[in-house]
Amino acid sequence: MDKIKLFAPATVANLSCGFDVLGCCLDGVGDEMIISKNSAKKLRITKITGQDLPLEVDKNVAGVSAEALLNALGENQGFDIEIKKNIKAGSGIGSSAASAAGAVFGINKLLGEPFSTNELIKFAMEGERLASGNAHADNVAPALLGDFSLVKSYEPLEILSLPSLPELRILVLHPLIELKTRDSRSIIRQNVALTKAISQWGNLAALVSALYTQDYELLGRSLKDEIIEPVRSILIPYFDELKALASANGALGFGISGSGPSVFAMCKGDVVAQKVKTEFQEFYQDKNIDFDLHLSKINSEGIKILAQ
Amino acid sequence: MDKIKLFAPATVANLSCGFDVLGCCLDGVGDEMIISKNSAKKLRITKITGQDLPLEVDKNVAGVSAEALLNALGENQGFDIEIKKNIKAGSGIGSSAASAAGAVFGINKLLGEPFSTNELIKFAMEGERLASGNAHADNVAPALLGDFSLVKSYEPLEILSLPSLPELRILVLHPLIELKTRDSRSIIRQNVALTKAISQWGNLAALVSALYTQDYELLGRSLKDEIIEPVRSILIPYFDELKALASANGALGFGISGSGPSVFAMCKGDVVAQKVKTEFQEFYQDKNIDFDLHLSKINSEGIKILAQ
Repeated sequence: MDKIKLFAPATVANLSCGFDVLGCCLDGVGDEMIISKNSAKKLRITKITGQDLPLEVDKNVAGVSAEALLNALGENQGFDIEIKKNIKAGSGIGSSAASAAGAVFGINKLLGEPFSTNELIKFAMEGERLASGNAHADNVAPALLGDFSLVKSYEPLEILSLPSLPELRILVLHPLIELKTRDSRSIIRQNVALTKAISQWGNLAALVSALYTQDYELLGRSLKDEIIEPVRSILIPYFDELKALASANGALGFGISGSGPSVFAMCKGDVVAQKVKTEFQEFYQDKNIDFDLHLSKINSEGIKILAQ
Repeated sequence: MDKIKLFAPATVANLSCGFDVLGCCLDGVGDEMIISKNSAKKLRITKITGQDLPLEVDKNVAGVSAEALLNALGENQGFDIEIKKNIKAGSGIGSSAASAAGAVFGINKLLGEPFSTNELIKFAMEGERLASGNAHADNVAPALLGDFSLVKSYEPLEILSLPSLPELRILVLHPLIELKTRDSRSIIRQNVALTKAISQWGNLAALVSALYTQDYELLGRSLKDEIIEPVRSILIPYFDELKALASANGALGFGISGSGPSVFAMCKGDVVAQKVKTEFQEFYQDKNIDFDLHLSKINSEGIKILAQ
């Protein structure tokens, strides 16, 4: 196999109570990547469409991730990477993670899978380090593994796959304003009240229980964030109003996707999700805010092979 | 039914990463209680053996818990409560919780179960409020429900039952020094570094996953506490040495039970648990510290009816 075409999915990280440790994988939105062996024995980004991003390997998240993998192997084969970006940079649904994860997944396949999918996470994290200054795993892990991923710890790196719920739908609303992950991190306080931390870990523990027991209502009741959301939500236009709309229309929960500006509503089933989608559309149109909306199932596979 | 005899189990709360939200129920150690209807239409603590504790209803944890239940019902029946304390007060394995939980469980049974077991938790919490100034649920919940209990939230009160692992053994070492819960709480800092809080909730989420997937090793790797243990462990004689001994002899994890001074070692199977028990015994004997040791399975039932 010399060439592979992939779907590299968008992801929603943090998920309210799971700040920095939890993420899930989307089905309805993602990049397309074509990765092929080349005879030049060099790693090259040959083409990027859909976004204006650097082609230089060391300035591109796919490039640095791929390079981290190849360096670990001492591999001197060359690869060409072509990316069709459908996920907007800075949207808060793992745009850099999708490219990073896709690159390492594709190259690993073409090399005969020297690494397990879980082992690829640390290479893709190098792309995140380039993109945001912080080698976080809560987008690249679910992009690679599918469903929900838990970052148990960074030192040592340990990522767990958590199950999903079949009728779960995620609606992502992306207000077309720019918000850099780096800036969005900088406004977070570095100390938290112990009482709030206890609430947060109680909710996260309950959310994990909800995933195993397939309890949609408990999942919804657990999607709370008293620590990050009160600070970050001020950067998102009409956050409180959207949250109230989601709740009034039957969503299980609502919160910030990653570091924003995208927000997500979790819903049980298509009917509720469509209703919330319509309400969000009408609300933002009324306010004259440009936006994208993505309605998606949870993607259990992670990266998908489209052709090889 | 006019009379009931109960086993009211000891419990281990906090469990490292689960500070204030997690607890589990022991099998090998607990109080015995006899509760009977009386014709005096008064609530009375008639006898306490094994410990010097007040018989006045409003000064006794069993008394105030029972009264909270009876007040909620507007019930004017009278009950006599007799307690044989086997759990030492101030040990850190839920001595007050056992009496409080036993009292409300027994009276609820004698009244024909107007409340579900989960609903009894809030009454038993009143006993905890009397004992420690803080109506916490992480001992009374597992005492009543068995296995592991998660306090998802206090406002509103929501308690989840989590599964246990069949070969799990808990060894509790109680150094016979006095340490009041109230004092042990007062040394905890009220703010924590966000990075430490994130580590803690990553570990707790992983621990919950380990309970559902029956993963003993993951359970062990998750029993970490970077927030409370470094502060509280200084009050416990030779904490670090005991932790190293537990690890060297194959325990899955080791930490402070409740607010101490008891410590616990979680082990897989009886052989490892017995080995750790012998090591702890010899170590504390060498140091001339008096102690109790309790080796126990996880109790899946909670309070047990011995006779009725």
